[in-house]
Amino acid sequence: MPAVTPPSSAARDEAATRLAGLATPAGALGRLGDLAVWVAATQGRVPPEPVERVRAVIFAGDHGVADHGVSAYPKAVTPAMVRTFLTGRAGVSVLAAQHAVTVRVLDLGVDDDLEGVPADVQRHKVRRGSGAIHLEDALTTDETLAAIAAGRSVAADEIAAGAQLLISGDMGIGNTTPAAALVAASLGLTAEAVTGRGTGIGDAALDHKTAVVRQALARAGERVADPVDTLTSLGSADIAASAGFLAGAAEAGVPVLLDGVVAVAAALLADRLAPGAAAWFAAGHRSPEPAQGLALASMGLQPLLDLGLRLGEGSGALAAVPLVRSAALLLADTALLSEIL
Amino acid sequence: MPAVTPPSSAARDEAATRLAGLATPAGALGRLGDLAVWVAATQGRVPPEPVERVRAVIFAGDHGVADHGVSAYPKAVTPAMVRTFLTGRAGVSVLAAQHAVTVRVLDLGVDDDLEGVPADVQRHKVRRGSGAIHLEDALTTDETLAAIAAGRSVAADEIAAGAQLLISGDMGIGNTTPAAALVAASLGLTAEAVTGRGTGIGDAALDHKTAVVRQALARAGERVADPVDTLTSLGSADIAASAGFLAGAAEAGVPVLLDGVVAVAAALLADRLAPGAAAWFAAGHRSPEPAQGLALASMGLQPLLDLGLRLGEGSGALAAVPLVRSAALLLADTALLSEIL
Repeated sequence: MPAVTPPSSAARDEAATRLAGLATPAGALGRLGDLAVWVAATQGRVPPEPVERVRAVIFAGDHGVADHGVSAYPKAVTPAMVRTFLTGRAGVSVLAAQHAVTVRVLDLGVDDDLEGVPADVQRHKVRRGSGAIHLEDALTTDETLAAIAAGRSVAADEIAAGAQLLISGDMGIGNTTPAAALVAASLGLTAEAVTGRGTGIGDAALDHKTAVVRQALARAGERVADPVDTLTSLGSADIAASAGFLAGAAEAGVPVLLDGVVAVAAALLADRLAPGAAAWFAAGHRSPEPAQGLALASMGLQPLLDLGLRLGEGSGALAAVPLVRSAALLLADTALLSEIL
Repeated sequence: MPAVTPPSSAARDEAATRLAGLATPAGALGRLGDLAVWVAATQGRVPPEPVERVRAVIFAGDHGVADHGVSAYPKAVTPAMVRTFLTGRAGVSVLAAQHAVTVRVLDLGVDDDLEGVPADVQRHKVRRGSGAIHLEDALTTDETLAAIAAGRSVAADEIAAGAQLLISGDMGIGNTTPAAALVAASLGLTAEAVTGRGTGIGDAALDHKTAVVRQALARAGERVADPVDTLTSLGSADIAASAGFLAGAAEAGVPVLLDGVVAVAAALLADRLAPGAAAWFAAGHRSPEPAQGLALASMGLQPLLDLGLRLGEGSGALAAVPLVRSAALLLADTALLSEIL
């Protein structure tokens, strides 16, 4: 596994000095100032260059638990939404068009043959649906490794296409259940601490979903000490690929803007697969899912937005893209105090 | 005073119905969904049209209290920043360029002749500096009425230029002191409840600033029952103009995205001058100034962003412009569930 080189501390220091010299009151840019310093550190240049080329990849897949009462929606929605991404009419597509962000959707594990969709969408498909994690492993070890490798390969493709900032999106009915389990397993938390309402289940279904997560964690047992085994027992093809994608971004020194609970669960695994990866991540939006906030806090990250979005698809990260761009532009283009007085 | 017609309740209801029918989980757009419904209601059309033409006006002025130890910066910064807006190198200029928002700066009461700046910038100038409100009235009644009329006239100009959304920005060393006093006077609050650190004063200066606000409120006495008298005794030429601008926007049925404590104090006065105006306002960014949150809450508004910005200039509202645009686009362009299943 390649080591992760941290963002440039020299650029970080130089950026902080420039920030302090802007023609603004000290600290007046608030979190945009901090974000600007981070962007400069990831680029290794001060002032940072504009963050123009942002690329998002949606990793789609189904989850065996969706047949066990953990979601408000049926699995048939997953392939329907993959087709909606391809026609550019999903919520994330609208945001991507607004912000000139490219979006690719990849089927890693949708439980459907997706007849008629372009072959490229299924190029990295690992299997149809992942196992119901409270009853069985999500994947075989070989499938997990294939999915992680696919994610790394996709990151390399996106970087070769010029990405300055990457986003990992998700689509898959039931996916907040494995995400919650992965966060609990990685941080040593209980099912109660991490399980949330996903797309909007009621109290009884939440109790049941929590029990499913608890059963899954008990089933996985001590295998959660290893990140690949964690993904094999509790993850899914799409989340393993997302973890590989995020690890690959960090290994290549390309920053990432994280989305909701699924992307953040993948980020936590990426940081376990490639220690130090989290230094390359910023958080776009606070998810209502408790697992997301716990995982972000463990990586020292605080989201830029808190708008109650629970759409998935990468939408929370997409909505925050203008703020990352603002941060870089403010540090580069605002006058220095020494220039105006 | 023209009555304020509320945003269209028919369009609001139709927009809420459309929102519920989108190919997203129920409520998944969170606050962007609520914002989209408000935008549709202000436009009176469903789906809403894209919010392309956003126009900001910065009302600049000085404040007598700035000579009395309430600010971390000297008054000379005000004219220097007016010149910086004109060269397009202030923080707000950077955000405006990013988001294709037009920005005009108007000198309503800068304590400087601003030699050499374009005459148009001083077209509405009411006086050089406003009175130190703990010792004397900020303005005469005639000056207050002239400033309010100037603001209304500027709003009419911006609307004639095609504005779909207006922003009121501020520049003036010391301006958070009258803003705090105006909020306390309008809501019946104490100086302690409303006074904050502005651009970053220490504890001793905060105590002094609080005493200045307290003294100003005591001096104004029962005159705060009338909005014009409130601005005369506790406001300033720039804030009175901003209040007129915001009232004028609401009277014309054009929505406004509010910025920090100065814009929100002006909005509170606008709602007193033109009852019902607040229905045309949304809040861009939560200010660290306590007066802002109190004033927003009294108008039933919750900010979209909370990034710790304390730059003024309209920057918090500018930073939130992409979210207003996202909301309108999501409601207009996301597929309906009935179209994809």
